Amino acid sequence: MAVRSVETDATAQAARLLSREELRAQFQATGEERYHHKHPFHLLMHEGKLTRGQLQAWALNRYYYQSIIPIKDSLILSRGPDPVFRRAWRKRVVDHDGDATSEGGIKRWIKLAEATGLNPAQVRAGTGILPATRFAVNEYLNIVRSRSLLEAVASSLTELFSTKLITLRVEKLREHYPWLAGGLDYFEARLYQAPEDSQFAVNYVYDNAKTRAEQELAIQALRDKCDILWAQLDALYFAYVEPGWPPPGAFQIEAT
Amino acid sequence: MAVRSVETDATAQAARLLSREELRAQFQATGEERYHHKHPFHLLMHEGKLTRGQLQAWALNRYYYQSIIPIKDSLILSRGPDPVFRRAWRKRVVDHDGDATSEGGIKRWIKLAEATGLNPAQVRAGTGILPATRFAVNEYLNIVRSRSLLEAVASSLTELFSTKLITLRVEKLREHYPWLAGGLDYFEARLYQAPEDSQFAVNYVYDNAKTRAEQELAIQALRDKCDILWAQLDALYFAYVEPGWPPPGAFQIEAT
Repeated sequence: MAVRSVETDATAQAARLLSREELRAQFQATGEERYHHKHPFHLLMHEGKLTRGQLQAWALNRYYYQSIIPIKDSLILSRGPDPVFRRAWRKRVVDHDGDATSEGGIKRWIKLAEATGLNPAQVRAGTGILPATRFAVNEYLNIVRSRSLLEAVASSLTELFSTKLITLRVEKLREHYPWLAGGLDYFEARLYQAPEDSQFAVNYVYDNAKTRAEQELAIQALRDKCDILWAQLDALYFAYVEPGWPPPGAFQIEAT
Repeated sequence: MAVRSVETDATAQAARLLSREELRAQFQATGEERYHHKHPFHLLMHEGKLTRGQLQAWALNRYYYQSIIPIKDSLILSRGPDPVFRRAWRKRVVDHDGDATSEGGIKRWIKLAEATGLNPAQVRAGTGILPATRFAVNEYLNIVRSRSLLEAVASSLTELFSTKLITLRVEKLREHYPWLAGGLDYFEARLYQAPEDSQFAVNYVYDNAKTRAEQELAIQALRDKCDILWAQLDALYFAYVEPGWPPPGAFQIEAT
């Protein structure tokens, strides 16, 4: 009987809905474990130890991620049955694609890539992007297409952690790579866009996850999204830092 | 006028349909450049320089690839409008899933994983598989879902190169890792399955590509498939050989 009651307690525990604060704490713990702020490629960046060529490889590959974000958000728009939800989420597409008053995040990322010395036409064409970048980024599209709307929304929650990382990054890029200073508009804009977005998404997940199992699926979606960001940096590190073998056909750093 | 006629020649050249032998030569050249027979992880394997733990990481991750192959082939079945085509392609699903007379390739891969010392239940559950493995393998599903049937068929053509690689691999595994000898049934079966399959697929692509542009799309699909195989080995090398950083949550090699 003692064993039985322990099992019953564990089952009851697993079935109990997390409070808003408990859910937020689980998201934070996921980020602490898996968000890419701890990745060695970012640590080298923030220590000023990346070469211009390595920053070019980063800007080129990350452009592929940036370029699919409004496609990802349009997929989420297409799955949201509620006009109020769609009006709120639409902001993200505008933030990246721009409108009459703003150039948008994709164009700002191109400016960053230009500041590293890349040709913007090559960046837009995507020539030399690592296959592993495409595979990881395309998985983000797979997630928002094939999982529930709740999980698709939850996968955006890396924005809970991005403001702190971007604040540090902008400071470190200015310090160590002053020639990049003209290309940092993308990050400046994200500093006020991301907190609004993540606030909406956290509330949406809390309000719409009706069972503990749904809450756990939302946490798993955030974990998987962290893996997508991490894998992009693994691929960069492997190809361009150590051991330094870009796969056949990928961008090559010019000898200086 | 001289410049004009050069352009016209180039356009005519680009528009000319490749002969069966020319198309096959293009496939061979793609494999020579991009197939994973040249990947440093395989070179270490064939030189006997991988540890048991590294072979476990390989068997575990490659299981995810093996496990989706009959799903990939079922997607192709679902897209083939012709019963004759489906009867021929169905063989692939049987080869991997088994039937009354054969255990099938997935079970044979489990036996290989067991021979490395892994627990078969863990392998089936996929615990510790690298996220980068999932992303690369899932891209294979993306390709057969979203591109033309011709390109989906062409993406299987790495089988043109697998017999030579597997012949070498079996010889080298027996030589350097004799404790694996009981787990090599998977490869023995592939030695007669793959040539039949690739012969059918090459003929299908040649017979059904009606323009040079379609032939080029088929070659690109093979190139992309090679990148999918290559990226899986990059991820293994990066996590388990050098620099040796498996991402958060991935399989860890036990200290010996």
